Amino acid sequence: MAIRTRLTDFFNIAHPVILAPMTPAAGGALASAVADAGGLGLLGGGYADRAWYEEETRKISTPRVGCGFITWAVEQDVELFDRALTELPTAMMMSFSDPARLGKRVKQAKVPLICQVHTLEHARRAIDVGADVLIAQGTEAGGHGLTARSTMPFVPAVVDLVSKIAPSVLVVAAGGIADGRGLAASLMLGADGVLMGTRFWATQESLIHPAAKQKVVAASGDETIRTTVYDIVREKAWPECYTGRLLKNGFIEKWHGRETELKTMHREERAKVEAAWVSGDYDTANVTVGEAVGLINDLPSAGEIVARTIREASERLGMFAAAERLAS
Amino acid sequence: MAIRTRLTDFFNIAHPVILAPMTPAAGGALASAVADAGGLGLLGGGYADRAWYEEETRKISTPRVGCGFITWAVEQDVELFDRALTELPTAMMMSFSDPARLGKRVKQAKVPLICQVHTLEHARRAIDVGADVLIAQGTEAGGHGLTARSTMPFVPAVVDLVSKIAPSVLVVAAGGIADGRGLAASLMLGADGVLMGTRFWATQESLIHPAAKQKVVAASGDETIRTTVYDIVREKAWPECYTGRLLKNGFIEKWHGRETELKTMHREERAKVEAAWVSGDYDTANVTVGEAVGLINDLPSAGEIVARTIREASERLGMFAAAERLAS
Repeated sequence: MAIRTRLTDFFNIAHPVILAPMTPAAGGALASAVADAGGLGLLGGGYADRAWYEEETRKISTPRVGCGFITWAVEQDVELFDRALTELPTAMMMSFSDPARLGKRVKQAKVPLICQVHTLEHARRAIDVGADVLIAQGTEAGGHGLTARSTMPFVPAVVDLVSKIAPSVLVVAAGGIADGRGLAASLMLGADGVLMGTRFWATQESLIHPAAKQKVVAASGDETIRTTVYDIVREKAWPECYTGRLLKNGFIEKWHGRETELKTMHREERAKVEAAWVSGDYDTANVTVGEAVGLINDLPSAGEIVARTIREASERLGMFAAAERLAS
Repeated sequence: MAIRTRLTDFFNIAHPVILAPMTPAAGGALASAVADAGGLGLLGGGYADRAWYEEETRKISTPRVGCGFITWAVEQDVELFDRALTELPTAMMMSFSDPARLGKRVKQAKVPLICQVHTLEHARRAIDVGADVLIAQGTEAGGHGLTARSTMPFVPAVVDLVSKIAPSVLVVAAGGIADGRGLAASLMLGADGVLMGTRFWATQESLIHPAAKQKVVAASGDETIRTTVYDIVREKAWPECYTGRLLKNGFIEKWHGRETELKTMHREERAKVEAAWVSGDYDTANVTVGEAVGLINDLPSAGEIVARTIREASERLGMFAAAERLAS
């Protein structure tokens, strides 16, 4: 079984599935596993932590892995950004805030440019900057984003925009996709493929504490929330419009809605969160996942996820086609 | 072309498409037009306004039209609810708040019971009450709802729940669906069909001022917002968890975020809104539509929408199947 789209052709990959460059889940092992399975692996460059980048690039076992960064964060370390363009030239994904400044460097390096977009306005801007691929991401996604749009209506709107003003640009659906049903649905919406975060977060290779992974296997999709409490505690300078989607826990229950107070005592609370990361106390530490958590019931390898997603999507697409032929 | 699902079998209809019982858009003419085109038409009983119900049921031209109400509102007029069960026995749809009290009457009347659900918890409750059909509606939908879930991850989660605990219950996707792409995607997610609101709102038959319809044709999906300002002005006793998704306009710009102040002067503002309904000033009056507004560029008949949606979905499903056969 194979699902060939413009995305598989563009990157010369077997399957139209991209690993979200999650920090810290998407290290070298996870990115390599997705690439080895025929998808596109993206290292989670995130906040541009040099030590992490160096440690994780050493674990990359295939040349077919790209990188992703939080745009406003990596703007503080353009040298690292340039290194990633040289060392991981398969693709560069930029997420959050205006891609214009660094986007130019990606184009000059002739590295494929992937831009995450949360609104049509973002999409227009990314096209202007020269994006080769737009990741149209709905608010149901895990981690940072906006509440502006949801995947189901947003993806076809981006597809329509692209077909009008930049038909060679690819569109990839993201947010709430965790299996072959989501891939098949995204293809129906006109997307060229999918980017999955939460589903790959919950795999053997992801750099996440086993206790956090167990919480995700047990959780329902009703249990996530958009909040800024962990950004406050960690003193991350996120632009005001962005919030993060996480699994609700005791820490969020305690502080969500009390952000002003939290700001006055973030050092104390940060120490608690950092201790919790180490001890595996994910009622205090952050579990950064999206609504797709409700579709996740196991912790297989990333390669098994890619294979399963393609198998399931192919079956769905073929099943309906058979029914169609009978009915028409 | 035909798309046969458990939904078409259950209601003995040609196409797996349901008209959302929107108030006041879904009057007798719109509900009849959808039914005549092979879908399931639901009259927008809404807040249980007797005069409106009587006027609009007189316009129903086919026996295959059901009715929908806002549950907490029609609980104030159970006599009208019972009349609808007798006069429009094709289906009863209940939306918002606990369906238990009135759901019993629907089951006793042997009328098919459709329950809108916004969380898995709602879904479990509706199954307990005896729902035959669950409308799994994401936050991108127009009108009232929650911010809890989005359509893409919510629909398969409801499908999984139903397959575990009540496999004979049907699941219909709603929220952000306005064309054949959305129908095809919903089928891939495991839904038995779709319920569309905004798309039918923007048709010839819908009971909406032409000026409001023109705004919707021009709008992008980035331009909607969830707010309570019109509920405050109209003194509607909505349970606190619910907000309404509408097209942003001058009135919302002015009052969203100033709800406490608005409560002190709602009479004055209500007079302005009511005058605006009559004059067609939809910078002041409410335009109650969802994110799917960005997929809408025309104002055809409702019958044309049903036919176009089926045609488009069939093409998508068939197209991929052809590619699948070549690739496999």
